[in-house]
Amino acid sequence: MTYMNYPNGLQKKKKTINYGNRGMSLEDDLNISNQYYLDSNIAVIYKKPTPITINHVDFPNRRDAIITEAHFKIPSTTDYNGIYKGKYIDFEAKETTSTTSFPLANIHEHQIRHLRQITEHGGIGFIIVEFTRLNRIFILMANELFAFIDNSERKSIPLQYFEEKGKEIKISLRPRIDYLKYIDL
Amino acid sequence: MTYMNYPNGLQKKKKTINYGNRGMSLEDDLNISNQYYLDSNIAVIYKKPTPITINHVDFPNRRDAIITEAHFKIPSTTDYNGIYKGKYIDFEAKETTSTTSFPLANIHEHQIRHLRQITEHGGIGFIIVEFTRLNRIFILMANELFAFIDNSERKSIPLQYFEEKGKEIKISLRPRIDYLKYIDL
Repeated sequence: MTYMNYPNGLQKKKKTINYGNRGMSLEDDLNISNQYYLDSNIAVIYKKPTPITINHVDFPNRRDAIITEAHFKIPSTTDYNGIYKGKYIDFEAKETTSTTSFPLANIHEHQIRHLRQITEHGGIGFIIVEFTRLNRIFILMANELFAFIDNSERKSIPLQYFEEKGKEIKISLRPRIDYLKYIDL
Repeated sequence: MTYMNYPNGLQKKKKTINYGNRGMSLEDDLNISNQYYLDSNIAVIYKKPTPITINHVDFPNRRDAIITEAHFKIPSTTDYNGIYKGKYIDFEAKETTSTTSFPLANIHEHQIRHLRQITEHGGIGFIIVEFTRLNRIFILMANELFAFIDNSERKSIPLQYFEEKGKEIKISLRPRIDYLKYIDL
């Protein structure tokens, strides 16, 4: 069994949620956007729960169960999937504080392999990356991600690659991150 | 926040895993079947992690994180989804010890609504139900599930309905539960 430190964004969740822009994580923004897509009957896309291994559960009474020991697991798949216009959608979303490049260490090898598998089966795969200090969010389709990984020794994807091969997502009001608009189907 | 007692199958997981037939839960069988589909490049389908709310995490050292308090959440979606022949696949799997009918209380209303949403968007939805004492497993496509729910006051689906409107899955060697064979695409 492989354990990991803790997933991205976990500590962030302890922050007070502020529905202005500051203080919202990319995950919060995407969850709200996905809820908008669902409510508007545009798409059905969810973030998967955080994968954990449960070691111990207490049952203090018949109606309650408390997990008292569990560990985070390395995910086998990406965090988000669902359906849009009849197509299977699958993506990973990450923030980086770097202002120049996105470190590939932020995405597990399992997740890259998963994106390759789903695109081979006809699914739509991509990553969404937020450069938090630049206040810029990009979508990069899986084929451009693979092209970079397969043709470069670099351990991070330069911002310029996102500018050239990806699309910059303009932040809007509703939904805040209208990423589906940038997918050609 | 809505809490629940504990998910189906949780206590079952504490059993010793026995790769003969006895002692395997439906979830175990499906996970092994999905791994076969993945390894054989037939489909990419995963069980989602159990949804929990994390209340407290200890960091005893830099490399470790232990969840010391968490609760089970009622799932918003079904447990399984993925892609098969370019189609979005989505289903829930349940065991029942009843020998006559499948109690609908085993499936949350959220999950029924989710199945309705994904079929409206062109996905393939269904449930897999194992009558454990009969040693019989059925697949029931979402439209037949909805037809029952929308036209009946009954709180459980009779076995006969599965026999007439569903398909019985023959247990095979590899994969053990070849449920994709029963889906018309």
